[in-house]
Amino acid sequence: MSATRPYQLHYWPHIQGRGEFVRLALEAVGVPYVDVARGDPEQGQGLPALMHHLQGPGVARPPFACPLLVDGKLVVGQTAAILLYLGPRIGLVGKSEADRLWAHQIQLTIADVAKEAHDTHHPVSTALYYEDQIPEARRAAEAFRTLRMGKYLAWFETVLARNPRNAGREVPNLIGARPGYVDLSLFQLVEGLLYAFPKATRRALRKTPRVAALHAAVPRQKRVAAYLASERRIAFNEDGIFRRYPGMDG
Amino acid sequence: MSATRPYQLHYWPHIQGRGEFVRLALEAVGVPYVDVARGDPEQGQGLPALMHHLQGPGVARPPFACPLLVDGKLVVGQTAAILLYLGPRIGLVGKSEADRLWAHQIQLTIADVAKEAHDTHHPVSTALYYEDQIPEARRAAEAFRTLRMGKYLAWFETVLARNPRNAGREVPNLIGARPGYVDLSLFQLVEGLLYAFPKATRRALRKTPRVAALHAAVPRQKRVAAYLASERRIAFNEDGIFRRYPGMDG
Repeated sequence: MSATRPYQLHYWPHIQGRGEFVRLALEAVGVPYVDVARGDPEQGQGLPALMHHLQGPGVARPPFACPLLVDGKLVVGQTAAILLYLGPRIGLVGKSEADRLWAHQIQLTIADVAKEAHDTHHPVSTALYYEDQIPEARRAAEAFRTLRMGKYLAWFETVLARNPRNAGREVPNLIGARPGYVDLSLFQLVEGLLYAFPKATRRALRKTPRVAALHAAVPRQKRVAAYLASERRIAFNEDGIFRRYPGMDG
Repeated sequence: MSATRPYQLHYWPHIQGRGEFVRLALEAVGVPYVDVARGDPEQGQGLPALMHHLQGPGVARPPFACPLLVDGKLVVGQTAAILLYLGPRIGLVGKSEADRLWAHQIQLTIADVAKEAHDTHHPVSTALYYEDQIPEARRAAEAFRTLRMGKYLAWFETVLARNPRNAGREVPNLIGARPGYVDLSLFQLVEGLLYAFPKATRRALRKTPRVAALHAAVPRQKRVAAYLASERRIAFNEDGIFRRYPGMDG
């Protein structure tokens, strides 16, 4: 990033969605960025700017979907790939290739959980309305709550337990001795699960105390706290990944 | 990779699954590797070796799932992350960061399609049997065939059409002038779709001639042809990502 050219994040302007994993990383370090689709179309921003990158006929390498990050001439799509690219540049991942690959693996697994959580309200197809798949959604949510969520959270717990740098600390990190983008993303994942499945998630977190401690600590980071209290943080709603629908929490 | 220590690929021994995207890359360049779980447990291979990496209590950084690649001390999980790591080392991706990120984005999108194709036979949950979700599976397959598959294939067609190095060529590549790991993976994706949804996929490919040409050309690569004809290539079956079940192809 040049000093005069902040990162451009392009994402749907009315939901947290997958863009939120990127927003949190940028906000946590206070790096300047433009949340383009929430800006003014008369200033070259807004949804038209986002749609140009996805559908503009002159775009050489159009991402399949957003979020996408623009850094000068480079356009990166896919949430985990954006964080793979951003992480070292904004100091939210270690310097070694091994640490960066491990962070990326964890991020891809967080993406897998988010996708499964999303698919509980769209089990038949993301191309159909929730209202057209409610009975299937309730079955899917039950299976996710009882058979999948705990398995994933237990894996994050193991990762936290086996990070040797967590010995003696109250607040653990997924990798090494400093919080990174994966910790912010795990916070966001747990936050989303608590929104969509409050009872089931609280129950699951009792078995994963390290995940619960990390989730409680992230919003105490000063810049994260300021962001979460600001208007830039969109509230969870029923157009995002994590949705609170009747009958989905058991 | 050291000369005396081939890559170790760990994956379920009876299916192509996600491991096949990695196998194809290794086979296409003729790099030595051990398909560990298909080896002899008495020689430290077989399923116990795979399970050690996933569940061994002494493993510092256990992947959530396989495939996983072992290269000396480094263990990499998540298919797309494995190819991100391997690609430059085995010459299947360009040298620039921009090309490597673009390849990774494409690979992550291929993974998204594979996941959606998988979920047509497991729409309620991967933790339940197909036999417990057959009506839902037929609805999901119809939506995938009619609303999703064509959209994805059209995106790959656009990527091929906009690669300036494809001008005047009969066989296009996704990136640059040489076939890379993403081309092998797109071949495998189309192969899987043709197995699971033969009629719908053939119909869709008529609208994406570049994707069809790439799919036809990859198995003519000499090493790929030898691999596909060998016993190392497991046949598609109903335990993998792509399954041929009655009523799923319209």
